[in-house]
Amino acid sequence: MSIEVYWGSGSPFSWRVLLALEYKRLRYESRELQFAKQEHKSPQLLRMNPRGRVPVVRDGDFVVYESLACLVYLDRKYPDPPLFGASAEEAATIMRVICEYLAYAEQYVTQIVSSVFLETLDEDLEKVTKAMHVVTGEARTIEGRLSTSDWLVGEQPSAADLVIFPGIMLLLRALEKREAGDLRARFVPMESTYPAIARWIARMEGLPGYDRTYPPHWREGPPRG
Amino acid sequence: MSIEVYWGSGSPFSWRVLLALEYKRLRYESRELQFAKQEHKSPQLLRMNPRGRVPVVRDGDFVVYESLACLVYLDRKYPDPPLFGASAEEAATIMRVICEYLAYAEQYVTQIVSSVFLETLDEDLEKVTKAMHVVTGEARTIEGRLSTSDWLVGEQPSAADLVIFPGIMLLLRALEKREAGDLRARFVPMESTYPAIARWIARMEGLPGYDRTYPPHWREGPPRG
Repeated sequence: MSIEVYWGSGSPFSWRVLLALEYKRLRYESRELQFAKQEHKSPQLLRMNPRGRVPVVRDGDFVVYESLACLVYLDRKYPDPPLFGASAEEAATIMRVICEYLAYAEQYVTQIVSSVFLETLDEDLEKVTKAMHVVTGEARTIEGRLSTSDWLVGEQPSAADLVIFPGIMLLLRALEKREAGDLRARFVPMESTYPAIARWIARMEGLPGYDRTYPPHWREGPPRG
Repeated sequence: MSIEVYWGSGSPFSWRVLLALEYKRLRYESRELQFAKQEHKSPQLLRMNPRGRVPVVRDGDFVVYESLACLVYLDRKYPDPPLFGASAEEAATIMRVICEYLAYAEQYVTQIVSSVFLETLDEDLEKVTKAMHVVTGEARTIEGRLSTSDWLVGEQPSAADLVIFPGIMLLLRALEKREAGDLRARFVPMESTYPAIARWIARMEGLPGYDRTYPPHWREGPPRG
Protein backbone atom coordinates (compact mmCIF):
# COMPACT_ATOMS: atom_id res chain seq x y z
CA MET A 1 0.00 0.00 0.00
CA SER A 2 1.48 3.34 -0.93
CA ILE A 3 1.62 6.57 1.03
CA GLU A 4 -1.34 8.91 0.67
CA VAL A 5 -0.93 12.65 1.19
CA TYR A 6 -3.90 14.96 1.67
CA TRP A 7 -3.04 18.53 0.83
CA GLY A 8 -4.34 21.85 -0.44
CA SER A 9 -3.02 24.14 -3.17
CA GLY A 10 -1.15 27.13 -1.76
CA SER A 11 -0.85 25.72 1.77
CA PRO A 12 2.81 26.18 2.68
CA PHE A 13 2.44 23.40 5.25
CA SER A 14 1.26 20.98 2.57
CA TRP A 15 4.03 22.04 0.23
CA ARG A 16 6.69 21.00 2.78
CA VAL A 17 5.44 17.43 2.74
CA LEU A 18 5.13 17.22 -1.04
CA LEU A 19 8.71 18.46 -1.30
CA ALA A 20 9.84 15.79 1.18
CA LEU A 21 8.08 13.00 -0.71
CA GLU A 22 9.67 14.08 -3.98
CA TYR A 23 13.09 14.62 -2.43
CA LYS A 24 13.00 11.11 -1.05
CA ARG A 25 11.64 9.83 -4.38
CA LEU A 26 8.83 8.03 -2.61
CA ARG A 27 5.76 6.79 -4.46
CA TYR A 28 2.63 8.41 -3.14
CA GLU A 29 -1.01 8.95 -3.92
CA SER A 30 -1.72 12.65 -4.15
CA ARG A 31 -5.09 13.63 -2.68
CA GLU A 32 -5.62 17.29 -3.36
CA LEU A 33 -8.44 18.81 -1.33
CA GLN A 34 -10.30 21.96 -2.40
CA PHE A 35 -10.33 24.50 0.42
CA ALA A 36 -13.13 26.38 -1.37
CA LYS A 37 -15.33 23.30 -1.09
CA GLN A 38 -14.30 22.80 2.57
CA GLU A 39 -12.99 19.36 1.69
CA HIS A 40 -10.48 19.66 4.55
CA LYS A 41 -13.45 19.68 6.93
CA SER A 42 -15.07 16.55 5.47
CA PRO A 43 -15.97 13.67 7.80
CA GLN A 44 -13.23 11.55 6.19
CA LEU A 45 -10.57 14.16 6.87
CA LEU A 46 -11.82 14.95 10.38
CA ARG A 47 -11.54 11.25 11.21
CA MET A 48 -7.84 11.46 10.34
CA ASN A 49 -7.19 14.93 11.78
CA PRO A 50 -9.81 16.28 14.20
CA ARG A 51 -8.45 19.79 13.59
CA GLY A 52 -9.48 19.58 9.94
CA ARG A 53 -6.15 20.78 8.64
CA VAL A 54 -3.77 19.64 5.96
CA PRO A 55 -1.31 18.13 5.29
CA VAL A 56 -2.25 14.66 6.48
CA VAL A 57 -0.10 11.66 5.62
CA ARG A 58 -1.52 8.16 5.74
CA ASP A 59 0.83 5.20 5.35
CA GLY A 60 -1.05 1.94 5.66
CA ASP A 61 -2.84 2.10 9.01
CA PHE A 62 -0.77 4.99 10.33
CA VAL A 63 -1.88 8.60 10.10
CA VAL A 64 0.13 11.71 10.95
CA TYR A 65 -0.55 15.42 10.60
CA GLU A 66 1.25 18.69 11.40
CA SER A 67 3.81 19.24 8.67
CA LEU A 68 6.94 18.96 10.81
CA ALA A 69 5.67 15.70 12.29
CA CYS A 70 5.02 14.42 8.75
CA LEU A 71 8.65 15.20 7.86
CA VAL A 72 9.88 13.42 10.98
CA TYR A 73 7.76 10.40 10.10
CA LEU A 74 8.95 10.21 6.51
CA ASP A 75 12.55 10.62 7.60
CA ARG A 76 12.45 7.90 10.25
CA LYS A 77 10.50 5.50 8.04
CA TYR A 78 12.40 6.18 4.81
CA PRO A 79 15.77 7.48 5.99
CA ASP A 80 17.61 7.79 2.68
CA PRO A 81 18.36 10.56 1.76
CA PRO A 82 18.17 12.08 5.25
CA LEU A 83 16.15 15.22 5.94
CA PHE A 84 17.42 15.69 9.50
CA GLY A 85 21.15 15.37 8.97
CA ALA A 86 23.78 12.71 9.30
CA SER A 87 24.95 13.54 12.85
CA ALA A 88 23.54 14.73 16.16
CA GLU A 89 25.10 18.13 15.56
CA GLU A 90 23.59 18.50 12.11
CA ALA A 91 20.18 17.28 13.30
CA ALA A 92 20.28 19.81 16.11
CA THR A 93 21.21 22.70 13.84
CA ILE A 94 18.52 21.76 11.32
CA MET A 95 15.90 21.70 14.09
CA ARG A 96 17.28 24.94 15.54
CA VAL A 97 16.90 26.75 12.21
CA ILE A 98 13.39 25.33 11.84
CA CYS A 99 12.43 26.38 15.37
CA GLU A 100 13.78 29.86 14.81
CA TYR A 101 11.70 30.22 11.66
CA LEU A 102 8.56 28.91 13.39
CA ALA A 103 9.05 30.99 16.54
CA TYR A 104 10.34 34.27 15.16
CA ALA A 105 9.31 34.55 11.50
CA GLU A 106 6.31 32.46 10.50
CA GLN A 107 3.59 34.40 12.30
CA TYR A 108 4.84 37.63 10.73
CA VAL A 109 4.92 36.12 7.25
CA THR A 110 1.34 35.01 7.87
CA GLN A 111 0.37 38.51 9.02
CA ILE A 112 1.74 40.12 5.84
CA VAL A 113 0.24 37.50 3.54
CA SER A 114 -3.17 37.71 5.25
CA SER A 115 -3.27 41.49 5.16
CA VAL A 116 -2.34 41.53 1.47
CA PHE A 117 -4.82 38.83 0.41
CA LEU A 118 -7.65 40.16 2.59
CA GLU A 119 -6.84 43.69 1.36
CA THR A 120 -6.65 45.03 4.90
CA LEU A 121 -3.18 46.55 4.67
CA ASP A 122 -4.44 50.02 5.60
CA GLU A 123 -6.28 48.98 8.75
CA ASP A 124 -3.49 46.57 9.73
CA LEU A 125 -0.80 49.19 9.13
CA GLU A 126 0.81 48.98 12.56
CA LYS A 127 0.91 45.17 12.64
CA VAL A 128 2.16 44.93 9.06
CA THR A 129 4.90 47.50 9.68
CA LYS A 130 6.13 45.49 12.63
CA ALA A 131 5.83 42.26 10.65
CA MET A 132 7.87 43.70 7.76
CA HIS A 133 10.55 44.81 10.20
CA VAL A 134 10.81 41.32 11.71
CA VAL A 135 10.61 39.47 8.40
CA THR A 136 13.29 41.56 6.73
CA GLY A 137 15.55 40.99 9.75
CA GLU A 138 15.00 37.22 9.63
CA ALA A 139 15.49 37.28 5.85
CA ARG A 140 18.87 38.96 6.36
CA THR A 141 19.87 36.15 8.73
CA ILE A 142 18.81 33.55 6.16
CA GLU A 143 20.63 35.52 3.44
CA GLY A 144 23.73 35.33 5.62
CA ARG A 145 23.53 31.56 5.97
CA LEU A 146 22.97 31.08 2.23
CA SER A 147 25.78 33.42 1.24
CA THR A 148 28.30 30.80 2.40
CA SER A 149 26.35 27.61 1.76
CA ASP A 150 24.09 26.17 -0.96
CA TRP A 151 21.56 24.92 1.59
CA LEU A 152 20.38 26.24 4.93
CA VAL A 153 22.22 23.61 6.98
CA GLY A 154 24.91 21.25 5.74
CA GLU A 155 25.85 20.16 2.25
CA GLN A 156 22.49 18.80 1.16
CA PRO A 157 18.87 19.94 1.23
CA SER A 158 17.37 19.28 4.65
CA ALA A 159 14.10 19.68 6.50
CA ALA A 160 15.16 23.28 7.18
CA ASP A 161 15.02 24.12 3.47
CA LEU A 162 11.72 22.27 3.04
CA VAL A 163 10.09 24.03 6.00
CA ILE A 164 11.17 27.57 5.14
CA PHE A 165 10.99 27.59 1.33
CA PRO A 166 7.17 27.45 0.99
CA GLY A 167 6.75 30.36 3.41
CA ILE A 168 9.09 32.54 1.40
CA MET A 169 7.36 31.58 -1.84
CA LEU A 170 3.96 32.41 -0.33
CA LEU A 171 5.26 35.78 0.78
CA LEU A 172 6.61 36.52 -2.70
CA ARG A 173 3.30 35.43 -4.20
CA ALA A 174 1.36 37.80 -1.93
CA LEU A 175 3.71 40.64 -2.84
CA GLU A 176 2.74 40.22 -6.50
CA LYS A 177 -0.67 41.68 -5.68
CA ARG A 178 -1.11 45.29 -6.73
CA GLU A 179 -2.18 46.21 -3.16
CA ALA A 180 1.21 45.13 -1.82
CA GLY A 181 2.71 48.18 -3.57
CA ASP A 182 5.23 49.66 -1.18
CA LEU A 183 5.98 46.37 0.52
CA ARG A 184 7.04 44.69 -2.71
CA ALA A 185 10.08 46.91 -3.14
CA ARG A 186 11.48 45.63 0.16
CA PHE A 187 11.89 42.14 -1.34
CA VAL A 188 11.60 42.27 -5.11
CA PRO A 189 13.66 41.82 -7.21
CA MET A 190 15.14 39.21 -4.91
CA GLU A 191 18.24 39.06 -7.13
CA SER A 192 19.28 42.46 -5.82
CA THR A 193 17.72 42.57 -2.32
CA TYR A 194 18.52 39.00 -1.25
CA PRO A 195 20.77 37.51 -3.94
CA ALA A 196 21.74 34.40 -1.97
CA ILE A 197 18.09 33.61 -1.24
CA ALA A 198 17.29 34.13 -4.93
CA ARG A 199 19.97 31.60 -5.92
CA TRP A 200 18.69 29.18 -3.28
CA ILE A 201 15.14 29.48 -4.64
CA ALA A 202 16.47 28.59 -8.10
CA ARG A 203 18.29 25.62 -6.56
CA MET A 204 15.09 24.45 -4.84
CA GLU A 205 13.19 24.83 -8.12
CA GLY A 206 15.78 22.61 -9.75
CA LEU A 207 15.22 19.67 -7.39
CA PRO A 208 13.84 16.56 -9.11
CA GLY A 209 10.04 16.43 -8.90
CA TYR A 210 9.75 20.07 -7.85
CA ASP A 211 7.21 20.82 -10.57
CA ARG A 212 4.83 18.23 -9.14
CA THR A 213 4.81 20.09 -5.81
CA TYR A 214 4.12 23.58 -7.18
CA PRO A 215 0.69 24.90 -6.09
CA PRO A 216 -1.57 24.16 -9.10
CA HIS A 217 -3.66 27.31 -8.80
CA TRP A 218 -0.53 29.48 -8.84
CA ARG A 219 0.08 28.30 -12.42
CA GLU A 220 -3.13 29.96 -13.49
CA GLY A 221 -1.51 33.38 -13.15
CA PRO A 222 -0.68 35.98 -10.54
CA PRO A 223 -3.06 36.56 -7.63
CA ARG A 224 -6.09 38.63 -8.51
CA GLY A 225 -5.96 42.32 -7.72
CA MET B 1 34.41 17.65 28.80
CA SER B 2 30.89 17.61 30.15
CA ILE B 3 27.74 19.21 28.82
CA GLU B 4 27.04 22.77 29.94
CA VAL B 5 23.48 24.08 30.08
CA TYR B 6 22.72 27.79 30.38
CA TRP B 7 19.25 28.40 31.75
CA GLY B 8 17.03 30.73 33.74
CA SER B 9 14.73 30.04 36.68
CA GLY B 10 11.08 29.91 35.64
CA SER B 11 11.80 29.70 31.90
CA PRO B 12 9.64 26.81 30.68
CA PHE B 13 11.98 26.43 27.71
CA SER B 14 14.95 25.96 30.02
CA TRP B 15 13.03 23.51 32.16
CA ARG B 16 12.47 21.18 29.20
CA VAL B 17 16.20 20.77 28.72
CA LEU B 18 16.97 20.25 32.40
CA LEU B 19 14.28 17.55 32.48
CA ALA B 20 15.85 15.89 29.44
CA LEU B 21 19.33 15.91 30.97
CA GLU B 22 18.03 14.35 34.17
CA TYR B 23 15.83 11.83 32.37
CA LYS B 24 18.83 10.67 30.39
CA ARG B 25 20.97 10.71 33.56
CA LEU B 26 23.63 12.78 31.83
CA ARG B 27 26.30 14.63 33.74
CA TYR B 28 26.13 18.34 33.11
CA GLU B 29 27.37 21.65 34.40
CA SER B 30 24.44 23.80 35.40
CA ARG B 31 24.91 27.48 34.50
CA GLU B 32 21.98 29.37 35.91
CA LEU B 33 21.67 32.90 34.53
CA GLN B 34 19.84 35.69 36.35
CA PHE B 35 17.28 37.33 34.09
CA ALA B 36 17.08 40.28 36.48
CA LYS B 37 20.77 40.97 35.88
CA GLN B 38 20.33 40.51 32.10
CA GLU B 39 22.88 37.72 32.19
CA HIS B 40 21.16 36.14 29.18
CA LYS B 41 22.22 39.22 27.18
CA SER B 42 25.87 39.04 28.23
CA PRO B 43 28.56 39.05 25.51
CA GLN B 44 29.39 35.44 26.38
CA LEU B 45 25.82 34.30 25.91
CA LEU B 46 25.29 36.41 22.78
CA ARG B 47 28.33 34.73 21.24
CA MET B 48 26.60 31.37 21.72
CA ASN B 49 23.05 32.54 20.88
CA PRO B 50 22.78 35.88 19.05
CA ARG B 51 19.13 36.06 20.14
CA GLY B 52 20.19 36.22 23.78
CA ARG B 53 17.77 33.54 24.90
CA VAL B 54 18.01 30.45 27.02
CA PRO B 55 18.33 27.52 27.12
CA VAL B 56 21.68 27.08 25.44
CA VAL B 57 23.48 23.74 25.48
CA ARG B 58 27.19 23.53 24.88
CA ASP B 59 28.80 20.13 24.45
CA GLY B 60 32.51 20.46 23.75
CA ASP B 61 32.78 22.73 20.72
CA PHE B 62 29.16 22.35 19.73
CA VAL B 63 26.47 24.84 20.74
CA VAL B 64 22.72 24.53 20.26
CA TYR B 65 19.77 26.66 21.35
CA GLU B 66 15.99 26.60 20.96
CA SER B 67 14.66 24.07 23.46
CA LEU B 68 13.25 21.58 20.95
CA ALA B 69 16.54 21.58 19.06
CA CYS B 70 18.37 20.95 22.35
CA LEU B 71 16.15 17.92 22.95
CA VAL B 72 16.81 16.64 19.42
CA TYR B 73 20.54 17.06 19.97
CA LEU B 74 20.59 15.26 23.30
CA ASP B 75 18.49 12.45 21.90
CA ARG B 76 20.62 11.88 18.82
CA LYS B 77 23.88 12.17 20.77
CA TYR B 78 22.80 10.18 23.84
CA PRO B 79 20.00 7.97 22.53
CA ASP B 80 19.27 5.87 25.60
CA PRO B 81 16.60 6.20 26.91
CA PRO B 82 14.93 7.66 23.82
CA LEU B 83 12.98 10.92 23.94
CA PHE B 84 11.58 10.65 20.44
CA GLY B 85 10.24 7.13 20.45
CA ALA B 86 11.38 3.73 19.34
CA SER B 87 9.72 3.69 15.91
CA ALA B 88 8.91 6.05 13.05
CA GLU B 89 5.27 6.00 14.07
CA GLU B 90 6.02 6.87 17.70
CA ALA B 91 8.50 9.59 16.69
CA ALA B 92 5.88 11.11 14.41
CA THR B 93 3.17 11.09 17.05
CA ILE B 94 5.51 12.61 19.64
CA MET B 95 6.42 15.40 17.22
CA ARG B 96 2.77 15.83 16.25
CA VAL B 97 1.70 16.32 19.86
CA ILE B 98 4.58 18.77 20.38
CA CYS B 99 3.70 20.72 17.23
CA GLU B 100 0.05 20.89 18.26
CA TYR B 101 1.04 22.32 21.64
CA LEU B 102 3.42 24.84 20.07
CA ALA B 103 1.00 25.88 17.33
CA TYR B 104 -2.33 25.89 19.12
CA ALA B 105 -1.71 26.23 22.87
CA GLU B 106 1.61 27.82 23.80
CA GLN B 107 0.91 31.40 22.70
CA TYR B 108 -2.33 31.36 24.68
CA VAL B 109 -0.64 30.01 27.79
CA THR B 110 1.88 32.83 27.39
CA GLN B 111 -0.92 35.38 27.03
CA ILE B 112 -2.60 34.27 30.26
CA VAL B 113 0.65 34.06 32.20
CA SER B 114 1.80 37.49 30.98
CA SER B 115 -1.49 39.18 31.77
CA VAL B 116 -1.52 37.68 35.26
CA PHE B 117 2.10 38.54 36.08
CA LEU B 118 1.93 42.01 34.53
CA GLU B 119 -1.42 42.56 36.29
CA THR B 120 -3.09 43.62 33.04
CA LEU B 121 -5.97 41.15 33.15
CA ASP B 122 -8.58 43.90 33.01
CA GLU B 123 -7.19 45.68 29.99
CA ASP B 124 -6.40 42.35 28.25
CA LEU B 125 -9.88 40.97 29.00
CA GLU B 126 -10.80 40.10 25.43
CA LYS B 127 -7.47 38.41 24.65
CA VAL B 128 -7.42 36.53 27.95
CA THR B 129 -10.99 35.32 27.51
CA LYS B 130 -10.09 33.91 24.11
CA ALA B 131 -6.88 32.43 25.49
CA MET B 132 -8.74 30.72 28.34
CA HIS B 133 -11.21 29.26 25.87
CA VAL B 134 -8.40 27.84 23.71
CA VAL B 135 -6.30 26.61 26.63
CA THR B 136 -9.17 24.82 28.35
CA GLY B 137 -10.01 23.15 25.03
CA GLU B 138 -6.42 21.99 24.52
CA ALA B 139 -6.26 20.88 28.17
CA ARG B 140 -9.33 18.69 27.57
CA THR B 141 -7.54 17.06 24.62
CA ILE B 142 -4.48 16.41 26.79
CA GLU B 143 -6.73 15.14 29.59
CA GLY B 144 -8.21 12.72 27.08
CA ARG B 145 -4.81 11.35 26.06
CA LEU B 146 -3.71 10.97 29.69
CA SER B 147 -6.93 9.28 30.78
CA THR B 148 -5.88 6.16 28.87
CA SER B 149 -2.10 6.40 29.16
CA ASP B 150 0.49 7.30 31.79
CA TRP B 151 2.45 9.48 29.36
CA LEU B 152 1.43 11.69 26.48
CA VAL B 153 2.69 9.31 23.80
CA GLY B 154 3.72 5.69 24.26
CA GLU B 155 4.65 3.75 27.35
CA GLN B 156 7.50 5.96 28.56
CA PRO B 157 8.11 9.66 29.11
CA SER B 158 8.97 11.33 25.83
CA ALA B 159 9.89 14.74 24.47
CA ALA B 160 6.14 15.46 24.34
CA ASP B 161 5.88 15.26 28.14
CA LEU B 162 9.05 17.31 28.59
CA VAL B 163 7.88 20.06 26.21
CA ILE B 164 4.35 20.45 27.58
CA PHE B 165 4.86 19.92 31.33
CA PRO B 166 6.74 23.18 32.06
CA GLY B 167 4.08 25.24 30.28
CA ILE B 168 1.32 23.72 32.37
CA MET B 169 3.32 24.24 35.56
CA LEU B 170 3.94 27.88 34.65
CA LEU B 171 0.23 28.37 34.01
CA LEU B 172 -0.62 26.85 37.39
CA ARG B 173 2.00 29.04 39.06
CA ALA B 174 0.51 32.18 37.49
CA LEU B 175 -2.95 31.14 38.61
CA GLU B 176 -1.72 31.16 42.23
CA LYS B 177 -1.60 34.92 42.10
CA ARG B 178 -4.48 36.66 43.80
CA GLU B 179 -5.20 38.64 40.62
CA ALA B 180 -5.91 35.45 38.71
CA GLY B 181 -9.09 35.11 40.80
CA ASP B 182 -11.82 33.92 38.46
CA LEU B 183 -9.43 32.18 36.11
CA ARG B 184 -8.05 29.95 38.84
CA ALA B 185 -11.33 28.12 39.33
CA ARG B 186 -11.21 26.93 35.70
CA PHE B 187 -8.12 24.82 36.48
CA VAL B 188 -7.68 24.43 40.22
CA PRO B 189 -7.97 22.03 41.98
CA MET B 190 -6.59 20.03 39.05
CA GLU B 191 -7.61 16.82 40.84
CA SER B 192 -11.24 17.59 40.06
CA THR B 193 -11.03 19.66 36.86
CA TYR B 194 -8.35 17.64 35.06
CA PRO B 195 -7.72 14.50 37.15
CA ALA B 196 -5.63 12.68 34.55
CA ILE B 197 -3.38 15.72 34.11
CA ALA B 198 -3.05 15.96 37.91
CA ARG B 199 -1.89 12.32 38.09
CA TRP B 200 0.53 12.93 35.22
CA ILE B 201 2.00 15.95 37.01
CA ALA B 202 2.59 13.74 40.06
CA ARG B 203 4.22 11.16 37.81
CA MET B 204 6.51 13.81 36.30
CA GLU B 205 7.38 15.05 39.78
CA GLY B 206 8.39 11.50 40.68
CA LEU B 207 10.98 11.19 37.90
CA PRO B 208 14.55 10.79 39.15
CA GLY B 209 16.35 14.12 39.37
CA TYR B 210 13.13 16.12 39.05
CA ASP B 211 13.92 18.20 42.13
CA ARG B 212 17.12 19.48 40.52
CA THR B 213 15.09 20.88 37.62
CA TYR B 214 12.47 22.74 39.67
CA PRO B 215 12.74 26.54 39.26
CA PRO B 216 14.73 27.67 42.30
CA HIS B 217 12.85 30.92 42.84
CA TRP B 218 9.55 29.06 42.91
CA ARG B 219 10.70 27.36 46.12
CA GLU B 220 10.77 30.71 47.82
CA GLY B 221 7.01 30.79 47.94
CA PRO B 222 4.01 31.65 45.80
CA PRO B 223 4.25 34.52 43.32
CA ARG B 224 3.87 37.93 44.89
CA GLY B 225 0.47 39.54 44.79
